[in-house]
Amino acid sequence: MNIDGRHYRTIWPDGEAVCVIDQTRLPFAFEVRRLATMEDAAEAISTMIVRGAPLIGATAAYGVALAMRAGASDALLDEAVRVLGATRPTAVNLHWALERMARTLRPLRAGERAARAFAAAAAICDEDVACCRSIGEHGAALIGEVAARKRGEPVDILTHCNAGWLATVDWGTALAPIYVAHDEGVKLHVWVDETRPRNQGAALTAYELGAHGVPHTVVADNAGGHLMQHGRVDLCIVGSDRTTATGDVANKIGTYLKALAAHDNGVPFYAALPFSTIDWSLRDGVREIPIEERSAREVTHMTGRTDGGAIETVAVVAPGSPALNPAFDVTPARLVTGLITERGVARASREGLLALYPERAAA
Amino acid sequence: MNIDGRHYRTIWPDGEAVCVIDQTRLPFAFEVRRLATMEDAAEAISTMIVRGAPLIGATAAYGVALAMRAGASDALLDEAVRVLGATRPTAVNLHWALERMARTLRPLRAGERAARAFAAAAAICDEDVACCRSIGEHGAALIGEVAARKRGEPVDILTHCNAGWLATVDWGTALAPIYVAHDEGVKLHVWVDETRPRNQGAALTAYELGAHGVPHTVVADNAGGHLMQHGRVDLCIVGSDRTTATGDVANKIGTYLKALAAHDNGVPFYAALPFSTIDWSLRDGVREIPIEERSAREVTHMTGRTDGGAIETVAVVAPGSPALNPAFDVTPARLVTGLITERGVARASREGLLALYPERAAA
Repeated sequence: MNIDGRHYRTIWPDGEAVCVIDQTRLPFAFEVRRLATMEDAAEAISTMIVRGAPLIGATAAYGVALAMRAGASDALLDEAVRVLGATRPTAVNLHWALERMARTLRPLRAGERAARAFAAAAAICDEDVACCRSIGEHGAALIGEVAARKRGEPVDILTHCNAGWLATVDWGTALAPIYVAHDEGVKLHVWVDETRPRNQGAALTAYELGAHGVPHTVVADNAGGHLMQHGRVDLCIVGSDRTTATGDVANKIGTYLKALAAHDNGVPFYAALPFSTIDWSLRDGVREIPIEERSAREVTHMTGRTDGGAIETVAVVAPGSPALNPAFDVTPARLVTGLITERGVARASREGLLALYPERAAA
Repeated sequence: MNIDGRHYRTIWPDGEAVCVIDQTRLPFAFEVRRLATMEDAAEAISTMIVRGAPLIGATAAYGVALAMRAGASDALLDEAVRVLGATRPTAVNLHWALERMARTLRPLRAGERAARAFAAAAAICDEDVACCRSIGEHGAALIGEVAARKRGEPVDILTHCNAGWLATVDWGTALAPIYVAHDEGVKLHVWVDETRPRNQGAALTAYELGAHGVPHTVVADNAGGHLMQHGRVDLCIVGSDRTTATGDVANKIGTYLKALAAHDNGVPFYAALPFSTIDWSLRDGVREIPIEERSAREVTHMTGRTDGGAIETVAVVAPGSPALNPAFDVTPARLVTGLITERGVARASREGLLALYPERAAA
């Protein structure tokens, strides 16, 4: 998407190196980092210079390519897969991308591997862009229907956390429909949940939307229900970290509360997700999806910029008080109006998903 | 309640002066301020050294008493009421306390006024304590019922914002049942919502509970629904800034979302409130209660303590992104299990409230 009128992806090859946007510096500084070696790519993933499952996968793929340029023996290929695979503990896309790279490269002679690796990494990126773009088009149709009813009044969309282009290679998932609709000239306005405790809404989603020129307003996570009670939200679109075969949606903590408010006020509630986040083995999200508990310090401390321009971390909880930090929650399918995927919009049910993914019916 | 084993009220006379706990310094420092003059009392209210409607009323009452000690003419009494009445724009208790003081003092000779004013201010404080204590006893009975079912397992109670003793003279409203039950030896544990954007849960409620020795854990506002889905909340108790005659509850923004989650998971949801917050003229809280919109800076910036010990304010939202800050929301009576008042626990309905306040039936 655009930053101040110039189009960017989150990752791109540049001569001998690969460039990424340093997301640890956002939203207060926009800096591009050049990754010259496999070790640079591994460090970029582990230090969260890049984050978001699809972007982590793409960076790992380019990391393999950088390794192959330095030396393309079987041993070095295995070493690259091992080092890059150890950078983040639970990212599914990371291992998917590394396995795909290894499967592509292993049959080749060493001399062919580097060029082929860069091409394969580029293909992973392009496929991610196409997938997200497709999610965007299907979701934009839903936004367009609301816009037609509102006859020129902006469509108000609430989102939670950051499922934007910064988490993918371009477009994003939950934000893709917003970008597509906005670029088509649909008038819209986005309510951005702050998304405590990591503030990815206030920091990243607000940054993305502002840089691309999409009207938006940041609100505390507490505010969405009030906005819906007063008719100020036309639809909700969130991302998903994992979706059951029955349509239950695991997403950033707090998503469930917004889904409850949407249901109570007759506001459509959509999750946007690529096929890769559907876990066909699960039937009951609340019972079966394990919820990561992250460091209490994410709750007790907050990082931001002082008026003087310094980045500073402050404690915001009474000294000595413990905190608990569950990172995700599960929204039951009964509260989800639809699942926006790259193949179209499915009802949040086994039947709805199988209608779009009939090849899974045999499973 | 207790701070490190010593009992405090939030306001008390001390020789020629009146002492208050400086709440602008909490939770990182405990400091007592001496108010020697009416102007000191006015400043304490306007700078939020004291906050919370009941405590503001009590401080204003003592402010009149301090004025009368300096000079007790009719003109000086009127001046004190005028100055103290202008300290906060919307606090109902402030004007109620000032009118009561003026009504008590005006018939008296000037020489009698100072002593009578101190006695009248003390009476206002004692009545507030008795009212909150009574709320605490009625609410503690509800907690006791859950404790009996749990047979020694701690009762898990979720609260939002700060309706604790720091907002009143002692005991608080939502926290009064917790203190009474805890002091009676009931095993309990409190989930403390951070309560963005002003963080009164993480700062004040956590401080209060910690200082009194009540087990508690701070969570992001987003977490309560997840906790309830997994059976980790036995009941919710919140305060109320205004309650309609039909039982709709206006309280700090985000309360409605927790009530929805409680309803969805069969968790009892109570609001604790003194009679003075019931607005008998209102029937539809969502439509009729005006919601204050506060400064966007409360959302975009956050204040806390650095590791070095300095109090610092940092921006936490992408530069240039606007924010909206509605301060309260309304929880419809259908989501409220009961209203804990100083007269007992009422159903959240016109009939329920009139059963406790039959003198209002004629209105």
